[in-house]
Amino acid sequence: MPVLTALLALVQAAAHMPPPDPSKPPRTPPEIVAAAPASAWTPIAPEDLMVIDYEGGGRTIVQLAPAFAPVHVANIRRLATGGYWTGSAIYRVQDNYVAQWGTNDDKKPLPAGVVARPPAEYVRGAAGLAIRPLGFADPYAARVGYAGGWTVAQYKDGSVSLTHCYGMVGVGRDLSPDTGMGGELYAVIGQAPRQLDRNIALVGRVVEGIELMSALPRGTEAMGFYKGAKVARKIAQVRLASALPAAERPAFEVMKETSPSFAAYLNRRANRDDDFYKVPAGGVDICNAPVPVRRTPAR
Amino acid sequence: MPVLTALLALVQAAAHMPPPDPSKPPRTPPEIVAAAPASAWTPIAPEDLMVIDYEGGGRTIVQLAPAFAPVHVANIRRLATGGYWTGSAIYRVQDNYVAQWGTNDDKKPLPAGVVARPPAEYVRGAAGLAIRPLGFADPYAARVGYAGGWTVAQYKDGSVSLTHCYGMVGVGRDLSPDTGMGGELYAVIGQAPRQLDRNIALVGRVVEGIELMSALPRGTEAMGFYKGAKVARKIAQVRLASALPAAERPAFEVMKETSPSFAAYLNRRANRDDDFYKVPAGGVDICNAPVPVRRTPAR
Repeated sequence: MPVLTALLALVQAAAHMPPPDPSKPPRTPPEIVAAAPASAWTPIAPEDLMVIDYEGGGRTIVQLAPAFAPVHVANIRRLATGGYWTGSAIYRVQDNYVAQWGTNDDKKPLPAGVVARPPAEYVRGAAGLAIRPLGFADPYAARVGYAGGWTVAQYKDGSVSLTHCYGMVGVGRDLSPDTGMGGELYAVIGQAPRQLDRNIALVGRVVEGIELMSALPRGTEAMGFYKGAKVARKIAQVRLASALPAAERPAFEVMKETSPSFAAYLNRRANRDDDFYKVPAGGVDICNAPVPVRRTPAR
Repeated sequence: MPVLTALLALVQAAAHMPPPDPSKPPRTPPEIVAAAPASAWTPIAPEDLMVIDYEGGGRTIVQLAPAFAPVHVANIRRLATGGYWTGSAIYRVQDNYVAQWGTNDDKKPLPAGVVARPPAEYVRGAAGLAIRPLGFADPYAARVGYAGGWTVAQYKDGSVSLTHCYGMVGVGRDLSPDTGMGGELYAVIGQAPRQLDRNIALVGRVVEGIELMSALPRGTEAMGFYKGAKVARKIAQVRLASALPAAERPAFEVMKETSPSFAAYLNRRANRDDDFYKVPAGGVDICNAPVPVRRTPAR
């Protein structure tokens, strides 16, 4: 072939590829995920899904992590149920860091039951968590791995935190010891800022529509704020999926880290050997091997 | 204080901060970089800066890495000098992965001297490189660190590669053993896809204007392509800085990894202890401790 337009040829190759041969094992991580049986997946409870609808259309869906930040997650559920974020906005987008949303108004009345100053749910104990180790070195923690469908880090003192990977959602806060009450949230839109692990309450992850946050124009002011009253995107409403009519309720599922499919997925994430690759890495960063999450398919 | 609007208060605090006390050492990584003396910096040669001007305004500047991919970089200089990218475009933006630009046309004639099939400059030998180790574990390589102003990884066989960190620029290619000739380039706009290290020729990094690539709407088709002939951003021209009139030439400098300022910067990247932080990480990922690069200030 003469000079190639790089990936274009790849796309063509993909388009012309024969259908997968069921007698051959799936080879790439997406193929492995697509081929995983129903038994490899576990559904996400509707009360763990937060549905953010934007003015003018578009939706971002966040899965909450009550096992890691129960008081913050309870707050967030009450804020959603109480309509706290109606008319709020994404008001801060900092390149290679975070997009942050909320009311940006510390005078707005809180719905009943919201704990104004939650405890520092930055880490939790390992009791009750079956950690499946990633098996590769990590520069931030004693070990990293998976527990309950989440990426986790464990430290020398035994404590466990979620990890600030792409798409993870945390609670904006002021200086320590404030922990934020959950009204101002951010999603990671760049290289994992793992230095924030153990320093901020992580409460979930974006499972759909991250590009409606990550592709926004960056704020021109310090920390990605915008000039004057400008915001990046206005939020029409935020609801829990459990508050939506059953027929409109989005359904997602998470791959079990105990499943053979997950083991195969992880192995291939660390050892890419499809036709594009010349040298398998022989390792992978925890944030490059996220837990597969997808819309629950019809079965 | 009542419920806080999180980072807003931080911004206010920063705005109200007294000017730095020169008797106190700088504390955050940006403070350390700002306080570094002129001797800590080395200028980037104008022929190592590629200036991408977009239709309708806006500019992205890429620093080339001839020490790591000399044939590819020589190609890229010839392509720029020959006007190859005039009227080209960013035609592929995949969330949490890459933005890719070029002609996407493998029939376009090449300027004289462009090597159509360069060697696989994915790794190089360590001879002539003084690697300053990062000093923290890495899941992909035997060790990671800095050499000649770049983040590098070294493998068990002694070979060295650049690392696919945020903003790094690589050469799009077809399936192995093709290496790409340099006409189609991509920049990393998400979590470092380090599995590409040793599998693609990295040729540089974006030193200004990454947000003109990273904040583009994501392509809706496979691999971030757009429907039909749509592209994300049109490129008016690409020139080397050395081809610009001296008065218009952008000037950048790189922090020397051998400088005391770099050591202080790196230490604080791994151990954030400013008022926001509760627990210093005690480590850092190579892609979260990039080499500081900036516009050369007036001195």
